Amino acid sequence: MAQKYASIHYSEYLQLEKLLDGQHMRSKALGEPAHDEMLFIIIHQVYELWFKQIIHELESVVGLFQDELVDEHEIGVAVARMDRVIEVQKVMIDQIRILETMTPLDFLDFRNYLFPASGFQSFQFRKVEVMLGLKNDKRITYGNHHYAAFFSETQQAELLEIEAKGSMFEMLEKWLERTPFLNFKGFDFLEEYQKAVKKMITQEQAAIQGSDYLSDREKEMRLKMLGDTDTYFLSVLDEKQHNQLIADGHLRLSYKATIAALLINLYRDEPILQMPYRFLSKLIDIDELFTSWRYRHSQMVLRMIGKKIGTGGSSGHEYLHNTAVKHHIFIDLHNISTLLIPRSMLPVLPANIKQELDFYYSTKRGI
Amino acid sequence: MAQKYASIHYSEYLQLEKLLDGQHMRSKALGEPAHDEMLFIIIHQVYELWFKQIIHELESVVGLFQDELVDEHEIGVAVARMDRVIEVQKVMIDQIRILETMTPLDFLDFRNYLFPASGFQSFQFRKVEVMLGLKNDKRITYGNHHYAAFFSETQQAELLEIEAKGSMFEMLEKWLERTPFLNFKGFDFLEEYQKAVKKMITQEQAAIQGSDYLSDREKEMRLKMLGDTDTYFLSVLDEKQHNQLIADGHLRLSYKATIAALLINLYRDEPILQMPYRFLSKLIDIDELFTSWRYRHSQMVLRMIGKKIGTGGSSGHEYLHNTAVKHHIFIDLHNISTLLIPRSMLPVLPANIKQELDFYYSTKRGI
Amino acid sequence: MAQKYASIHYSEYLQLEKLLDGQHMRSKALGEPAHDEMLFIIIHQVYELWFKQIIHELESVVGLFQDELVDEHEIGVAVARMDRVIEVQKVMIDQIRILETMTPLDFLDFRNYLFPASGFQSFQFRKVEVMLGLKNDKRITYGNHHYAAFFSETQQAELLEIEAKGSMFEMLEKWLERTPFLNFKGFDFLEEYQKAVKKMITQEQAAIQGSDYLSDREKEMRLKMLGDTDTYFLSVLDEKQHNQLIADGHLRLSYKATIAALLINLYRDEPILQMPYRFLSKLIDIDELFTSWRYRHSQMVLRMIGKKIGTGGSSGHEYLHNTAVKHHIFIDLHNISTLLIPRSMLPVLPANIKQELDFYYSTKRGI
Amino acid sequence: MAQKYASIHYSEYLQLEKLLDGQHMRSKALGEPAHDEMLFIIIHQVYELWFKQIIHELESVVGLFQDELVDEHEIGVAVARMDRVIEVQKVMIDQIRILETMTPLDFLDFRNYLFPASGFQSFQFRKVEVMLGLKNDKRITYGNHHYAAFFSETQQAELLEIEAKGSMFEMLEKWLERTPFLNFKGFDFLEEYQKAVKKMITQEQAAIQGSDYLSDREKEMRLKMLGDTDTYFLSVLDEKQHNQLIADGHLRLSYKATIAALLINLYRDEPILQMPYRFLSKLIDIDELFTSWRYRHSQMVLRMIGKKIGTGGSSGHEYLHNTAVKHHIFIDLHNISTLLIPRSMLPVLPANIKQELDFYYSTKRGI
Repeated sequence: MAQKYASIHYSEYLQLEKLLDGQHMRSKALGEPAHDEMLFIIIHQVYELWFKQIIHELESVVGLFQDELVDEHEIGVAVARMDRVIEVQKVMIDQIRILETMTPLDFLDFRNYLFPASGFQSFQFRKVEVMLGLKNDKRITYGNHHYAAFFSETQQAELLEIEAKGSMFEMLEKWLERTPFLNFKGFDFLEEYQKAVKKMITQEQAAIQGSDYLSDREKEMRLKMLGDTDTYFLSVLDEKQHNQLIADGHLRLSYKATIAALLINLYRDEPILQMPYRFLSKLIDIDELFTSWRYRHSQMVLRMIGKKIGTGGSSGHEYLHNTAVKHHIFIDLHNISTLLIPRSMLPVLPANIKQELDFYYSTKRGI
Repeated sequence: MAQKYASIHYSEYLQLEKLLDGQHMRSKALGEPAHDEMLFIIIHQVYELWFKQIIHELESVVGLFQDELVDEHEIGVAVARMDRVIEVQKVMIDQIRILETMTPLDFLDFRNYLFPASGFQSFQFRKVEVMLGLKNDKRITYGNHHYAAFFSETQQAELLEIEAKGSMFEMLEKWLERTPFLNFKGFDFLEEYQKAVKKMITQEQAAIQGSDYLSDREKEMRLKMLGDTDTYFLSVLDEKQHNQLIADGHLRLSYKATIAALLINLYRDEPILQMPYRFLSKLIDIDELFTSWRYRHSQMVLRMIGKKIGTGGSSGHEYLHNTAVKHHIFIDLHNISTLLIPRSMLPVLPANIKQELDFYYSTKRGI
Repeated sequence: MAQKYASIHYSEYLQLEKLLDGQHMRSKALGEPAHDEMLFIIIHQVYELWFKQIIHELESVVGLFQDELVDEHEIGVAVARMDRVIEVQKVMIDQIRILETMTPLDFLDFRNYLFPASGFQSFQFRKVEVMLGLKNDKRITYGNHHYAAFFSETQQAELLEIEAKGSMFEMLEKWLERTPFLNFKGFDFLEEYQKAVKKMITQEQAAIQGSDYLSDREKEMRLKMLGDTDTYFLSVLDEKQHNQLIADGHLRLSYKATIAALLINLYRDEPILQMPYRFLSKLIDIDELFTSWRYRHSQMVLRMIGKKIGTGGSSGHEYLHNTAVKHHIFIDLHNISTLLIPRSMLPVLPANIKQELDFYYSTKRGI
Repeated sequence: MAQKYASIHYSEYLQLEKLLDGQHMRSKALGEPAHDEMLFIIIHQVYELWFKQIIHELESVVGLFQDELVDEHEIGVAVARMDRVIEVQKVMIDQIRILETMTPLDFLDFRNYLFPASGFQSFQFRKVEVMLGLKNDKRITYGNHHYAAFFSETQQAELLEIEAKGSMFEMLEKWLERTPFLNFKGFDFLEEYQKAVKKMITQEQAAIQGSDYLSDREKEMRLKMLGDTDTYFLSVLDEKQHNQLIADGHLRLSYKATIAALLINLYRDEPILQMPYRFLSKLIDIDELFTSWRYRHSQMVLRMIGKKIGTGGSSGHEYLHNTAVKHHIFIDLHNISTLLIPRSMLPVLPANIKQELDFYYSTKRGI
C-alpha cells in the first residue's frame, strides 16, 4: 500500500529512453546523413505531442458539455482548458519559424527518402479536426486522395465514433439552444432586440438628415448604408431565411443557437453570462488560430518547395491555403458581430430578469 | 447638432502630421547623421505610447475598485482591461528584439549626443509604477540620483496625489479585506482550513510510515519534509507573526487580505469567486511581465554597453537587474501558492454557503 | 561650437509633449467617452511610427543598391537593415493581439464617429508597398475606391516619384542581372546546371526501375512524377517561355535575374555569395511577413465586424484577405525553390572559379 | 539495392506508436487521475526533444571548429545552425506560457506523486551546459545536491569526455586566438587602437572644455566621466591585469582572444570578418536566451510553488534565479561593448590590409 510514495526518476517518469530513441534519420540509414533531417523529425514529433495535448483538453471539454444540464461551475473549467489549447496553438504557430531555418537546399538532401510520408497522414490532426466539428463532406481533398485511405480500420472507426457522439460544434449548438433566457418570465429577447434595432435605425436616420456637417451627397451615402444595414438585420433575423442559408451551406449554426449566442454577446456583463461569453470567445480564438496555423504552414511549404507555375494540379501550398480559408468551424460565431448594437441602444432588462442573471448573494445585498 | 456625423480623415484622426514630425535626430542636427538614431527615437516613442495606454487602463480599473461596494458586474470588466495591459506588456517585451538589431557600434555613432537623457527620466513609467503600488521608499536608487529630480513640480505633485488616493495595491488590499465569506453564516474559513491542513499532514505521515516502497532513510527524509511543512503553515497563519513580517519588510499584504486571497484561490470554481480569482491571476501576470521586461531591458543594456569590470559604481545593467528582482509589487499573491492544499483535502462547503456563492438562477433550479 | 555636448532631457528628445497630446477621442468630443477608443488611436499611431521606421530602412537599402557597382561591404549592412524590418514586422503582427482585446461590442461604442477614416487612407503604408515594388496596376481595389483619391497631390507625386526612381524590386532585379558569375572565365552556369539536372533525372530513373522495394504500380507513379519534374525544369529554363509567363502576369522577375538568383541559391556557401544569399532570404522573409500581417489583419476585421452573409459587395475582411494572397512582391524568389537540385548533384566549380568566389587571404593560404 | 526508394508512412517515420505511448500519468496509476498531469508530462517531453535538437546542432558546430584551420566556408554554416538553436530557444521560452495555464491548485493534484523527479535530473540539459562551456566547478549547487549523483556512470563519463575534448567556449577561444590579423604585415592592431582611444579622449576633452553650452559644473562632471573612461580602457587593455581578473574569476576569455574579438567587432564590415562577427553575435544571443529561459523558469516556479518566507534553505525559485545570473558563459563577449570606439575614430586600415580582408574577385575589380 501507499505505493504512491514510491520514488521515481525524471527520466523514467518521462520515458526518455523511448522518447529519445525515436529519431532515426532515413538519410543516414539509406544514404548520406543529412544534418537537417534531425530537425525535420523532431519538429514533427513535437507537433504530434502537442496534438495529443489538444486532444486531451478537447475530450474533457466535450465531455463537460455532454450532459443535458451543464453545471455552471464547469464553464470556468472549460474556459481554462480552452485557454490552454490557445497557448499551445500559439507555440505551434511560432515554431514554424524553427522549421524555416531549414533552407530548401537543405531539405533536398533528404526529401527523396520521405516518399510518400506527409503530414496529410497525421491521424491525430484529423482527430482534432473531427473533434472540433469538421465534417467529412466539407473537407477539401488533396488531389484525388481521401485521408481515410491512410488510416487503419480502427482509426477510421474511431473517427466515425467521434462524429457520431457529437463534436465540439454540436455540443455547443445544443448547449446554446438550451439557454433559458431567450423567452423568460415575460421577457421576449428577440422581440425586444428587434424593437431596439428599429429604434436605432430611426434615430440615426433623423440625425443624418438633420446634420449641419454633412453635404447632401454624404447624407445620401450615409442613408443608403443605413438602409442596407436595416435590410441586413431583417434578413438575418428571419428564421426561414436562416434555414435556407444553412441548406445552401452558407451557415451552419441553428437559428435558435444563433439567437442565444447573440443574447450572450449583448448581455455578457451579467454575472451568469460572463463565463459563457468567454467560452464563445475562446472558440473564436481557437478557430482563428487553427486558421492562422494552416496559413503559416502553407507559406512555409511555398518557401520550401515553391509553386510550380504552369503545371496543372494543385500544389501543396494551394491545398493548405484553401484549408485555411475553408476549414473554419466556428465562423458563425465570428458573424455574431454583424448583429451587435451599441450598448446604449440595448433593451434594458427588467429587474426580475436582472436578478435571475445575478449571484444569489448579490441579490440579497440589494445591489 | 449631430456633429458626430462629421467626416474625418485617418491622418487627421491620428494627428499624423504631429506624430510623424517628432523624430529629430540629434546626430543629424549636431554632427553626422547616424542611421540608427531613428530607431532609437521611434522605439522609445512607441514605449511612451504604450505607457499611456497602460495608464489609461490602470486608471479605469483603480477607479472601479475605489467604491466601498464593488459591483460584481465590474470585476469582469476589470479582468478584461488587465488582460489588455498583459497583451501590451508582451509586445513591450518582444519589441526589445527590435532594439537589439542596433549593434553597440551603431549606438556609439550617436550615444554622445544623448547625455544626460535616459529612460530613467520617463515620467509615465514612474507613474505606472506608482499606480501599481511601488512605494517611493522601496525604490532602488540609481547612483545618487533620485528620480524626482528629473520631474517638474506639477509632475511630482501628480505622483504624490496618486500615492495619496491609493494605488492598485491598496485598492486590492481593501477589496480583499471586505470579502464577506471569511466568517459567514457559521462557516469560519480559517478554522476549517486549519483543521484540513492538520488532517492532511496526519494522513500523509501515516501513509509514509506504512509504505512498503520506501527505505527507512527515505521515510525519515519524507517525514522531516512534512514536519517542515507543518511548521511553515502554522507560522504563516499566525497573525502576530504575519504582522512582524510586514514590519520587517518581508511581506506587504495585510493578514486579513491574505486570508481572503487564500479563500478565493481555494474555492475559485464557485461562481461568485470565478472572476475575483481571475483578477488575482491577472495581477500576478502583470507583476511577472513587468519583472520580465525589466530583466530583458537589463540584458539589452548589458549587450549594448557592457558591464565595466573592476570599476566601482553600479552599472545601468545592474541597476535594472536589481529592479527586476526587487520591484515586485504583488509578490504576496504569488506566495499564496505555498498555502494551497489539494482539492481533495478542502473543507466541504455547507449547502447554505454553496448557495450564497452560486447564481440566483441556479439555486432555484436546484443544482 | 561643440554644441553637441549640450544637455537634453528625455522628454524633450522624444518630443513627448507633442506625442502624448495627440490622442483625442472623438467619442469624448462628440458624445459619451468610449473607453476603448484610446486603444484604437494608440495602436494605429504605433503602427504609423513603425511604418516610418520601415520606410527609413527601405530608403537606405534601396539607396545602397542604386549604384551601378554595389560595394560588397554594403550587402552586410543591407542584410542587417532588412533584419530590422523583419523584427518590426513580427511585432506588428503580434500586436494585433492587443487590438483583439477590444471586443466587437466595445468597438460599437465609437465606431460611428470614425466615418470614413480607415487604414486604407494610410499614406505611409502605401509608400511602403510602392517602395517594395507593388505596382499600381496590380493593386487590388476596394469597392470602387482608388487609394490615390485619399491623398494630397504632393503625396501622389511622391508615390509616382518612388515608382519612377525604382523600387526595391527593380533595384534587386538589376543587381541580380549584373551578377558576373553567370558566364565567367569559361564556366557557363546554365549549361552546367542543365547537364546536372539531366544527369540527376537519368540516375533516379535507373534507381527506380531497378529497385526491389517498389511495386510496379509504385515504380510507374514515381517515374511519372520524375517525368513531370523533367518537363517542368525544361520549361522553366526556357527564356522564351519565361518571357511569355511575364507577359501573362504569372512571373515578374526577368529571366537573367532569375538565373542569377538560382546560382546564388545553389552556391550560397562560397564566400562572395554568402551575403547575397542572405539578402535574398531576407526579402522572402519580408514578403512572407507582410502577407502574414495582411492575413492576420483580415482575421481581426472578420472578428470585429463579421462578414455580412448574403449581401453583395466585398467585405473589408475579403479585401484584406485578397491582398494577403495577391500582393506578394517577391514571389519569384520563393519559386526559386522549385529549381534547386541536391548539393550532391551540383556541378563542381573549377578551381579558378572557386578562387574568384573566395576571400583574397584564403586563396593565398591555399585553402 | 535502391532501398532508398522504399515507401514509408508518416507514423512509422516519426515512430508515433512509441512516441504517443509514453505519457503515463502517475496520478492515474496510483490514485485519482489529475487532468493536468498530461500537460506536465508532455511539455517536459517537448523540452527534451528540443534539447536533443540543440545538442545535434552544437555537436556539429563544435565539430566544425575543432580543426586547426577552420574553413571560411563553414562559418556561414555555423551561423545558420546557431540561428536554429536561437529559434528553438525562443520557442522554449514562449512555451512556459503553456505551463503557466496550469494553476498551483491543479499542480497539487499530482505533485505528491512525482517525488523526487525534477528537471534537475535532466541529463540532456546538463550536456547542453557542458557543451557550451559551463565548468563543473562554476556550477551553482542546489542544496547539497550535486547533479552527477542523478546520472549513471556512462552519463557521467560522457560529460567528462565532452569537457576533455573541449566545449564551444574553448573552441571559440582557440579560434579567436588564431586570428591572423592582430599583427599582420606591419599593422599592429592593438597599438593603432590604443592611439585611437588616446586621440578620441583628447578631442573630447578639448570639446568639453571649449563648449559654450555647458555650465562649469557640467564640464567638470563630463571631464570626470571621460577620465574614468580613460582609466578603464587602460586597465582593460593591460595583459597582466587581464590575467589577474581571470585568476580572480571575473573574466574567462584569454587576453589574446579578447583582443581578436575586439578587432572583429570593430572591422566587422570587412568581407572576411562579416561572418565571424555574426558568429560572435549569435553566441551572445544564445547566452542571453538561455539566461532568459532560466529567468522565466524561475518565475514560473515562484508562481507555482511560491517562496517560503522565513524558512532557511534556498528555494527552487532562488536556485533557478541564481543560475540565470551566474551561469552566463559568453559574458566576456558581451563585455567587448565597453571597448568599442565610434567608427569615425577607428584606425584606417592600410590598403594592403584592406585587400587581405576582401574578396579575391573584388580586389581584382579594383574596388
